[in-house]
Amino acid sequence: MKKNAVVGQSGGPTAVINASLYGVAHEALNHKDSIGTIYGMINGIEGFLNNQIMDLAPLEESGELELIRTTPGSYLGSCRYKLPEDLTDPLYPQLFQRFEEYNIGYFFYIGGNDSMDTVSKLSRYAKKTGSSIRILGIPKTIDNDLVETDHTPGFGSAAKFVASSVREIAVDASVYDNKKSVTIVEIMGRHAGWLTAASALARKFDGDNPVLIYLPETSFNQDAFIEKVRSALEQTPNLVVCISEGIHDESGTFICEYSNAVGVDTFGHKMLTGSGKYLENLVKERLGVKVRSIELNVCQRCSSAMLSKTDHKEAMDAGAYGVKAALEGSTGNMVAFKRLDSDNYKIDYVLKDVNIICNQEKTVPIDWITDDGADVTEEFIAYAKPLIQGEVTVPMEDGVPKFAYRK
Amino acid sequence: MKKNAVVGQSGGPTAVINASLYGVAHEALNHKDSIGTIYGMINGIEGFLNNQIMDLAPLEESGELELIRTTPGSYLGSCRYKLPEDLTDPLYPQLFQRFEEYNIGYFFYIGGNDSMDTVSKLSRYAKKTGSSIRILGIPKTIDNDLVETDHTPGFGSAAKFVASSVREIAVDASVYDNKKSVTIVEIMGRHAGWLTAASALARKFDGDNPVLIYLPETSFNQDAFIEKVRSALEQTPNLVVCISEGIHDESGTFICEYSNAVGVDTFGHKMLTGSGKYLENLVKERLGVKVRSIELNVCQRCSSAMLSKTDHKEAMDAGAYGVKAALEGSTGNMVAFKRLDSDNYKIDYVLKDVNIICNQEKTVPIDWITDDGADVTEEFIAYAKPLIQGEVTVPMEDGVPKFAYRK
Repeated sequence: MKKNAVVGQSGGPTAVINASLYGVAHEALNHKDSIGTIYGMINGIEGFLNNQIMDLAPLEESGELELIRTTPGSYLGSCRYKLPEDLTDPLYPQLFQRFEEYNIGYFFYIGGNDSMDTVSKLSRYAKKTGSSIRILGIPKTIDNDLVETDHTPGFGSAAKFVASSVREIAVDASVYDNKKSVTIVEIMGRHAGWLTAASALARKFDGDNPVLIYLPETSFNQDAFIEKVRSALEQTPNLVVCISEGIHDESGTFICEYSNAVGVDTFGHKMLTGSGKYLENLVKERLGVKVRSIELNVCQRCSSAMLSKTDHKEAMDAGAYGVKAALEGSTGNMVAFKRLDSDNYKIDYVLKDVNIICNQEKTVPIDWITDDGADVTEEFIAYAKPLIQGEVTVPMEDGVPKFAYRK
Repeated sequence: MKKNAVVGQSGGPTAVINASLYGVAHEALNHKDSIGTIYGMINGIEGFLNNQIMDLAPLEESGELELIRTTPGSYLGSCRYKLPEDLTDPLYPQLFQRFEEYNIGYFFYIGGNDSMDTVSKLSRYAKKTGSSIRILGIPKTIDNDLVETDHTPGFGSAAKFVASSVREIAVDASVYDNKKSVTIVEIMGRHAGWLTAASALARKFDGDNPVLIYLPETSFNQDAFIEKVRSALEQTPNLVVCISEGIHDESGTFICEYSNAVGVDTFGHKMLTGSGKYLENLVKERLGVKVRSIELNVCQRCSSAMLSKTDHKEAMDAGAYGVKAALEGSTGNMVAFKRLDSDNYKIDYVLKDVNIICNQEKTVPIDWITDDGADVTEEFIAYAKPLIQGEVTVPMEDGVPKFAYRK
């Protein structure tokens, strides 16, 4: 008897997490000889526990699956649900009982670190109990912080969005070039600075904005920062500085916490302003120039306007590769990317042990950051540039992007 | 002897202010029989006073002018410079002396309210002194707040960016649809709510997000707002609310000022958080749900990712029309748009007295806002939808948009 498949999405959405869903669903639907029904979990493993599932085959017939391919966000809904550490927890037999009810033989989970933790636990439980369900992870995160893979789907499009937006912000900032100004752009990434580093791709020429880039991989010294800004303003009167939301001082205190220590809102709550806002005030106070701060915010992970064709294709292919690997017997693995040739960008899809991947974080190598901690090196540029290449045409309706959504 | 032309840009940039610069330059270069050199003022009238000008003809030869067409921001640089009210001020003869030195016969100024004030003063001074210089305004503002014109270049692209971004934010917000949440999006527009109203174009179906939209044209009641949010959450668990940065209470106090009254940063400065941040805390306090606020920020006016083809074409055509009008003898006017047919969108380019336009503000008609002040009507949708239609392909280089810039 043919087994069914189930696919879920988990953690924060990206611009291409649905491309991976498309990849899984489309490939699985191409294997009707081996796979029965292809289910989607609504709101990940949490929804699945509550029997929230849907049959994905009708989406292909209706054309909705094609639209899902270019829709940002998690079409199936997401969850942040951590499975118990203890594999003897009664939740596990309950879950696998549910798998049996739906005759699941293949389980695909698209997500980042935490989602790979789910894949790890389920596959270990399956092994322990002799279950034949094949359990695979499909990577996804704009943070690019998964180990054992050259990069992750979602990063390329977010990096392209960051680079484009910072280039536009720099153009905007330069219109009053007869007056000095500082624009501080705060970019997502609490512990890993990959996305902030991608702002270097915004430069139109050597020495162009963003002149200063600060990642959370090194510690941030406020006095040194002010001196850097002061000196950079001599060359670049309309200075753009990019900082990661997670920059911190030597003791590990986040820069944004400096501000929170004092501000209190009308309700007596601490004012949760970001690092950018704090540094805006710091620069204003110390240098007396015009300053503004900008948070790129969730648009970094949900904008469909700057899909990288490379990233988009890899996201689809990663999903499809996962299905093929499962059919060939793989379980307990995550689909990963291996870069074959640095000069002529090319990757291979490989499988990596998910137990090594989950709960680890890959940060930007220290030697890809300049000694003064205020820029990235050519090695980073060479690494990141291929990932943002190419554009994807998103279908439009009435002047805005057309997206798929569950009715 | 042929006269020369000079064109300048002033005020905040938009995504298509350079399309108007292209329109002026391209059209003027097509009239070499009547117009000599075509100068660009660097940093508007302020730079011109300091002899900061450039010849635009070489830009056409080098292909740079073509690139300027799709570059956001003010290629020539901008200024915020108010000419003296008193036309007997010595600055005027000084300026007109400079016009004479450069043999200027045609003066084009691309900008909003304040820039039209410059056009008004210069044209009145010219009339008073019998100068033959023809002085024309080309409209530009994302705020869409100029009177005597159906709409302004810049608004359509900003509206398309707002509608697209809000649609994407709504998709992003909906991924945890098993948990209630409120997302507050703060949109530019201090006094006129046109751009905030454009967020209504983000809806995929009736009743879709953004469910609540608040403009500065009506007064904002915090208690009524909380009740609206509470009730909307019953239908839409992941609620998106769009507010104008300029929302204010009945007495005219900006909502953001409520927050500033208490927050103080490390340096003893008032914390300048926006209305969105204030309402984020208010909703959290009163309803205890998950809330976040997002400022769309300067990307609204500088993103090239969501250029409206309609807006882009009209911006170019407005520039070209201004040149033709000047050659036919017009002065003291602004190029304006007259909508001919509401059902089948079509406009005529017309000339309007700049003295009536400057220093006035056109706000959203009160009868285009629903009685509860929390949405816009179908009339607004019918008005705005044609303005965001069509896409423009921006040239790319190395994965990011390629922009023109002064070397």
